[in-house]
Amino acid sequence: MSSQYGKKLRISIFGQSHSPAIGVSIDGLPSGIKIDMDELRAFLKRRSPGQNDISTARTEDDAPEILSGLVETVTCGAPLAIIIRNEDARSVDYRELRDIPRPSHADFAAHIKYGGFQDVAGGGHFSGRLTAPLCAAGGICLQILRGLGVSIGAHILRVGNVQDDPFDPVAVSSADFEAILENPLPVLNRESGESMKKQILEAKEKGDSVGGIVECAAIGLPVGLGDPIFDGIENRIAGIVFGIPGVKGVEFGSGFAVACRRGLENNDSFFMDGENVRTRTNNAGGILGGITNGMPVLFRAAFKPTPSIGVEQDSVSLSRSENAVLRVKGRHDPCIVPRALPCVEAAAAIALYDAFLDQ
Amino acid sequence: MSSQYGKKLRISIFGQSHSPAIGVSIDGLPSGIKIDMDELRAFLKRRSPGQNDISTARTEDDAPEILSGLVETVTCGAPLAIIIRNEDARSVDYRELRDIPRPSHADFAAHIKYGGFQDVAGGGHFSGRLTAPLCAAGGICLQILRGLGVSIGAHILRVGNVQDDPFDPVAVSSADFEAILENPLPVLNRESGESMKKQILEAKEKGDSVGGIVECAAIGLPVGLGDPIFDGIENRIAGIVFGIPGVKGVEFGSGFAVACRRGLENNDSFFMDGENVRTRTNNAGGILGGITNGMPVLFRAAFKPTPSIGVEQDSVSLSRSENAVLRVKGRHDPCIVPRALPCVEAAAAIALYDAFLDQ
Amino acid sequence: MSSQYGKKLRISIFGQSHSPAIGVSIDGLPSGIKIDMDELRAFLKRRSPGQNDISTARTEDDAPEILSGLVETVTCGAPLAIIIRNEDARSVDYRELRDIPRPSHADFAAHIKYGGFQDVAGGGHFSGRLTAPLCAAGGICLQILRGLGVSIGAHILRVGNVQDDPFDPVAVSSADFEAILENPLPVLNRESGESMKKQILEAKEKGDSVGGIVECAAIGLPVGLGDPIFDGIENRIAGIVFGIPGVKGVEFGSGFAVACRRGLENNDSFFMDGENVRTRTNNAGGILGGITNGMPVLFRAAFKPTPSIGVEQDSVSLSRSENAVLRVKGRHDPCIVPRALPCVEAAAAIALYDAFLDQ
Amino acid sequence: MSSQYGKKLRISIFGQSHSPAIGVSIDGLPSGIKIDMDELRAFLKRRSPGQNDISTARTEDDAPEILSGLVETVTCGAPLAIIIRNEDARSVDYRELRDIPRPSHADFAAHIKYGGFQDVAGGGHFSGRLTAPLCAAGGICLQILRGLGVSIGAHILRVGNVQDDPFDPVAVSSADFEAILENPLPVLNRESGESMKKQILEAKEKGDSVGGIVECAAIGLPVGLGDPIFDGIENRIAGIVFGIPGVKGVEFGSGFAVACRRGLENNDSFFMDGENVRTRTNNAGGILGGITNGMPVLFRAAFKPTPSIGVEQDSVSLSRSENAVLRVKGRHDPCIVPRALPCVEAAAAIALYDAFLDQ
Repeated sequence: MSSQYGKKLRISIFGQSHSPAIGVSIDGLPSGIKIDMDELRAFLKRRSPGQNDISTARTEDDAPEILSGLVETVTCGAPLAIIIRNEDARSVDYRELRDIPRPSHADFAAHIKYGGFQDVAGGGHFSGRLTAPLCAAGGICLQILRGLGVSIGAHILRVGNVQDDPFDPVAVSSADFEAILENPLPVLNRESGESMKKQILEAKEKGDSVGGIVECAAIGLPVGLGDPIFDGIENRIAGIVFGIPGVKGVEFGSGFAVACRRGLENNDSFFMDGENVRTRTNNAGGILGGITNGMPVLFRAAFKPTPSIGVEQDSVSLSRSENAVLRVKGRHDPCIVPRALPCVEAAAAIALYDAFLDQ
Repeated sequence: MSSQYGKKLRISIFGQSHSPAIGVSIDGLPSGIKIDMDELRAFLKRRSPGQNDISTARTEDDAPEILSGLVETVTCGAPLAIIIRNEDARSVDYRELRDIPRPSHADFAAHIKYGGFQDVAGGGHFSGRLTAPLCAAGGICLQILRGLGVSIGAHILRVGNVQDDPFDPVAVSSADFEAILENPLPVLNRESGESMKKQILEAKEKGDSVGGIVECAAIGLPVGLGDPIFDGIENRIAGIVFGIPGVKGVEFGSGFAVACRRGLENNDSFFMDGENVRTRTNNAGGILGGITNGMPVLFRAAFKPTPSIGVEQDSVSLSRSENAVLRVKGRHDPCIVPRALPCVEAAAAIALYDAFLDQ
Repeated sequence: MSSQYGKKLRISIFGQSHSPAIGVSIDGLPSGIKIDMDELRAFLKRRSPGQNDISTARTEDDAPEILSGLVETVTCGAPLAIIIRNEDARSVDYRELRDIPRPSHADFAAHIKYGGFQDVAGGGHFSGRLTAPLCAAGGICLQILRGLGVSIGAHILRVGNVQDDPFDPVAVSSADFEAILENPLPVLNRESGESMKKQILEAKEKGDSVGGIVECAAIGLPVGLGDPIFDGIENRIAGIVFGIPGVKGVEFGSGFAVACRRGLENNDSFFMDGENVRTRTNNAGGILGGITNGMPVLFRAAFKPTPSIGVEQDSVSLSRSENAVLRVKGRHDPCIVPRALPCVEAAAAIALYDAFLDQ
Repeated sequence: MSSQYGKKLRISIFGQSHSPAIGVSIDGLPSGIKIDMDELRAFLKRRSPGQNDISTARTEDDAPEILSGLVETVTCGAPLAIIIRNEDARSVDYRELRDIPRPSHADFAAHIKYGGFQDVAGGGHFSGRLTAPLCAAGGICLQILRGLGVSIGAHILRVGNVQDDPFDPVAVSSADFEAILENPLPVLNRESGESMKKQILEAKEKGDSVGGIVECAAIGLPVGLGDPIFDGIENRIAGIVFGIPGVKGVEFGSGFAVACRRGLENNDSFFMDGENVRTRTNNAGGILGGITNGMPVLFRAAFKPTPSIGVEQDSVSLSRSENAVLRVKGRHDPCIVPRALPCVEAAAAIALYDAFLDQ
């Protein structure tokens, strides 16, 4: 098992970067839910490559084709399968990689694991392209969650050494999510976005890349989602977000910053907000004992700089067992973070909707 | 489902802080493996409360009783069940909690989720006490992994604002793991340990608590463990480590620091080390595309300060729907991190041995 | 994995015939359900050995001890763990079996699978004794289902060549279930029971054993339980009932008899019964497309004659790789069917309640 | 969850009778296995409709399209996805069915379960057409198992009141499997096949249908496959075979006949056959304690007569809540058994190869 996620909502992702198609089967969707295909396509567009000067030159229309699971546009209770054809695949670019693994890519580990039979073209099943079916599944969950009063949004919190304003952990709102999408880069503070873009272009010019952090929030969740110990919301979200290529850390609420704190300072005290129990602060990121407490669920994912860079790197020849030099060809994003944003939202939506169904 | 983990090695944890017993069933252990019970007891001892002036005064012998799965001391292929009796339970301490939830504990979320029927005594199933069966299962996995040439160790990287020396990501060794256990607090640098202890006692005096970070390493792993996308080693480790109460962040290799880096700087270039392919740096924490690459697996978990503190806090009365003041009674650790250390090792051992069996 | 069952309700069975204890952890029970312990003990009593002249002479009190999951007698949402101590174990009886496998027992297959490390005493994990924790879990599900308006009952349909009256597939009722339990052997027709008892005693006298069929019905189920293809009610029930030692066949509704039928004869036509849609016949056994249709769920399980018999049998010596003769010692039921009855009810209850929770 | 099966080999089936496509994703296939596409197509052809005068007139080319998981024709370790386009769909035939459920079809149960949103065209996700992706997955497993020395074959044991010669439980061989496929109907005794065909055509003429039994054998399996209690080979095979539409019973070895037997008669005594331990009889069907014992695995599945028949039947109008009369239109098989044969082989292959990988 490997490319399947979920307890009640079971998603199975398939495809390689240059296989005829990539796709996802979603098992466990309730019947009777109308899917807005235009909205789904628009959501997938946010992840698509080739849209501006800071993403890869590979162009893919990424038009999702629904194979099953709907009657007209309404879920019928059967598994919903979506495929996306791979159009602009240039396998010739990747031939050398079978012998000389790219540093910080899965090439070497996969070579050993699969005995040299793995699909190397474009990174095969390890390609970031596999986040397209993740986004397709997540885009559907986002629509369904919205119907349940839940909104999910994300922004780039950091690129290199540029930091965006963080979400307000207590008061983050749908208005924030909408404002983010109106900026050229998805940030809260447009000026931070400008600086981030500069960093990215600067890295690109040098044939280099740069990392970053995505911050994501989910609001409107009921109290009581998630289960103790291994099926808490943190486990569930981390279990899917670490499935997005390049993620090296996931933290909730105040995250790693809690390590420096005293209990009195970090505890989120309760108060009655009218009829509702709320907390004055939200260091917990809306999750206590693995269970939602009604406050915004808040988490951050750290993305490493794209390992595909245009400069020469040291590697080895697997066939000759000797050191070798590699120059990665192909087309790559100098910073994966802008396109990773909808992937993080999608992952959160799948995890949270699955937890919702798994009550 | 909630308190079960694993694909090939299925562990099921049960018990509440003050139930007759807590325990774990481990399904999927291969037959023919000798278990050293003395070693297991010694490992559990590291987690046990009441051992020094910086942990809770609750004393539990924590003697594991094996109910099944062994013939004499050798695994027989049947599920191995271990229970630990709860001896020193003082349920009287917790009565008030049914009405006034403790800030940053699961009380409120659990109250809503379970309709008020949850076991409040000592935190019930959400208690840190449930890490005892986790350690029992993990202690067994640690023994088996050692037989496979894999060692796992951890140290306190941080308490409050005191930092220990980090592991050398490339050269961390069993000798480090042994050295750590010879210090009064489990750290690499004994002086850091002294400072940490001061911080903890200082917090304790004020009735407060303090957070910290555990760093854990696994060495000797073969190349090729883990699976793509959702069953990567990162997903698997995060999926279990977030099951330890108080964890708010998990990061691998250079973790959140990668966000500030350029690709050239962050990529781990390969070289031939004799017959072996290795990397000169280990920013990846030994995992690429979810799969081990033969370098040390390295991760950190952030622990929040113990939410149970001895000072008055704002809360609410659930029965009267009004604000209320809470003073937590009972016996608590001013810093959970020292006792959490074996839990992190146990969790890593379970995740890695499960990945090993799941090849 | 092996001794775990269920999707939303996860039961994990552990123990061997002669290990210190056997038990079960039940994960996923809703909170707030009162468990009647006397009723549970009475249910387990129906499975217990040593109660009359047609069962094994091994006596076990089979008193269930609840370790967790309840607050007083009410479920609290945490896993409910139950253990039963093994008291009357006589391991000395089984020594020879490590070398000479008993025909039609798991001994030989287990010897190869577990490399000779399996627990041979009393059949180890393969012993019928492991149905005690199954009954403990099922007894709890039976209580909960009754609160939901669902009753489950079973009778011995056949022992050797004696047949009981079958359930009326359309009109089977709780009154039938109660009547069955008033007979010395659990049958609908007391005279059949008398004949069955004669067959069993006759076999016993010869040191032989005899097989049989259990017929089980569940009434009061809502329409719509179960899922298509692999998670249908048939798959779910068969998936657990084949876990009872000795079962070699499971059939639903008219079962194997449908093979001889024409469609017109076998189809269950619908009619309005007041407000309700019902069928005039119930050849489907209440399940269509894997989903309950509101009619009684009806199935039968075939049990082979107890393979432990008191006469000499041909076998082999595994150590010497030569033919050998075996005379099974120990205490055995000449017919397992009467004691298997509550196991079948328990299995059905677990499968159906899991399907209920998994909607 | 519903249309997913397997522990190590995870298959996810999707599609409806009249959706754009049907398909399957197979997660967990080892890398480096060559798939013979011609052989796969030939296997699927055995299930395809429209091939002779005793099957439905619906014609489907059923050409499988591989979307992912292969590099050229060799598995690469990534999920293998296969789709089959639905070409000859005539949705107009099925309109009335949204109101008047067909007796002994899933229509009514699905209507309640999915709130009327289920896809009624052609039976939607409940259609026998969904066995095409099952056969695609199973056809691949059959190829792989053959490479491991395992052969699987099946024949029609019964149609209506005509019985074929049974497999020899001890000596069934690949030669039998080959002989079966040379007959016009897949039987061991060609004359039985002639009589079966007559029964089928006779039923067809009357607009009626007829049921039957498929007997399936797997030879060459190693000793030790399968796990105790809930993951035995019986549970695993039953868990998938009940996923084939129309199956109402599954039995292993001597199956329901064991109920009438004495232990001495039913026990399979061991003997040394050269170096190998074998049994003289095979009433166990090659499975003891859920684990293979090296003898042929043997099971039978009972199929009900096709519920779609051309004569008027009593039903109800769901919209008007009153009795109604239904005459099923569309194209149907008068006996599903001949086409179900490869489905049973496919199901067995998936279950056994999954058990093989799950060791």
